[in-house]
Amino acid sequence: MSALMLALSETLPFARHLSELSGIPLGQIETRRFPDGEAWVRVEADCKGRSVALVVSLDRPDSRLLPLIFLADAVRDLGATRVGLVAPYLAYLRQDRRFHTGEALTSRTFGGLLSRYVDWLVTIDPHLHRYTSLGQVYTIPNRVVHAAEAMAVWIRDHVDRPLLVGPDEESRQWLADIASRAGAPYVILSKVRHDDGTVEVTAPDLHDHHQQTPVVVDDIVSSARTMLATVKALTGARMRPAVCMAVHALFSAQAEEQLRHAGAGRLVSTNTVPHASNAIDVAPLLVEAVNELAL
Amino acid sequence: MSALMLALSETLPFARHLSELSGIPLGQIETRRFPDGEAWVRVEADCKGRSVALVVSLDRPDSRLLPLIFLADAVRDLGATRVGLVAPYLAYLRQDRRFHTGEALTSRTFGGLLSRYVDWLVTIDPHLHRYTSLGQVYTIPNRVVHAAEAMAVWIRDHVDRPLLVGPDEESRQWLADIASRAGAPYVILSKVRHDDGTVEVTAPDLHDHHQQTPVVVDDIVSSARTMLATVKALTGARMRPAVCMAVHALFSAQAEEQLRHAGAGRLVSTNTVPHASNAIDVAPLLVEAVNELAL
Repeated sequence: MSALMLALSETLPFARHLSELSGIPLGQIETRRFPDGEAWVRVEADCKGRSVALVVSLDRPDSRLLPLIFLADAVRDLGATRVGLVAPYLAYLRQDRRFHTGEALTSRTFGGLLSRYVDWLVTIDPHLHRYTSLGQVYTIPNRVVHAAEAMAVWIRDHVDRPLLVGPDEESRQWLADIASRAGAPYVILSKVRHDDGTVEVTAPDLHDHHQQTPVVVDDIVSSARTMLATVKALTGARMRPAVCMAVHALFSAQAEEQLRHAGAGRLVSTNTVPHASNAIDVAPLLVEAVNELAL
Repeated sequence: MSALMLALSETLPFARHLSELSGIPLGQIETRRFPDGEAWVRVEADCKGRSVALVVSLDRPDSRLLPLIFLADAVRDLGATRVGLVAPYLAYLRQDRRFHTGEALTSRTFGGLLSRYVDWLVTIDPHLHRYTSLGQVYTIPNRVVHAAEAMAVWIRDHVDRPLLVGPDEESRQWLADIASRAGAPYVILSKVRHDDGTVEVTAPDLHDHHQQTPVVVDDIVSSARTMLATVKALTGARMRPAVCMAVHALFSAQAEEQLRHAGAGRLVSTNTVPHASNAIDVAPLLVEAVNELAL
């Protein structure tokens, strides 16, 4: 069965790259917005009898969801045999339980919704905390790809005497894995999240590490509160400027400046979410999973 | 069975009013946005064993859809027996066929999506053009309420010697109905939509109508291109400043100023979409339909 790839405009550069790597051709679509904010989508590629992979990163879920669903439905109407989703970044995984009575379990609703429109899913390092697998949220076949090796390679190639830094115990296992792949040591700081939303991070004695370059690693950096508190703790301990590394660079408007102001060095991220800090290409990691599910 | 009403913040004043009129109590919810744009929703009202009506106008479908769906799912998890939607304005009805190969039939996808999350639907003057009933798009029980009588009453009470004006033949039947209820004459202009998106409206000889106040009526005013061309045609025919009346006041940023600049008089709308021009209260028209479906 011949496969086809389609992408919304924001994920188009990533999809073009993935198409070249995988050999799955990238078809044309056209999207527009009406003055009232409604979306218009047109598929120009021939979908009949083909397995279609939609490449859409979900970092702005509000504005991506409807175009994605419209696309999925249109592609089926046009005769696609299967429709899958390649979401380099997958949204709505953080609310993984009801912390207070009456809270919407958004992870489950969002997962259930997407599972109704696509037949399979491939993503990179989804934020699984209390869930142990994506299958608890998505009822469709899925493949999860990890960026750890690509991040480790970047650290090895670009950082002088790296010291990996995790902001809290929660990150230990993941950080230890990246550190071991990078052949670098690591430390775990201790994070306290206060009721008012502020985050405090305290560092152990780092005196023996003053000749190393700290690399703070987190999966999602959005408001960057945790990363900021970590950088402040490192600056306070008179460490070198920290490299700040994220898988998914959601960075809110002020986050970047606050990090610089706190003494951070280079910001580095994978290309799951388009951002100036993108330096680690994870598209090659998706090829096998996409070929397996789309072909 | 006791009923309950819940509303997203943008539709809260409307819902409060509808709650008073219908006697269905309005429960509390809390909504927030995370820095990455994800929504958080919490239902504070007791939903167990109750029939819940969600009051959400869909004029900004991108930002309303997920909170609405999260709310619907949460309310069911909390034990609601039925969940309905009161959408004073219902989005995505304009793309009612594929004008070009490969176009997404967004009306059908959006209708199908909402039909999966709510059990019934009440709305006001949905934009049905090629569809003859909402049941062709929504697979759930629905009631459509018309604003014609309320608009006619407003015209009778506020306009000196009104002359109702429809921009095109498509509006004739609806306009004739409002005119007859208002006891006023009407004229239909002729509209041509050019390929480049511009709209041209030409007026017949209006010489005998110079002592009347034109009232241009349309269901949705968004970019206001049609209304603007109509006002220009009336100004060109040396008519009095036209009252511009819409059921659903979506008004894009420049639309209002362009209308004023073209010589429009007062802008008037119903309160299905919150806007400075709201003058016609349609909440009372919903009471019967909501009580019928929610109770």
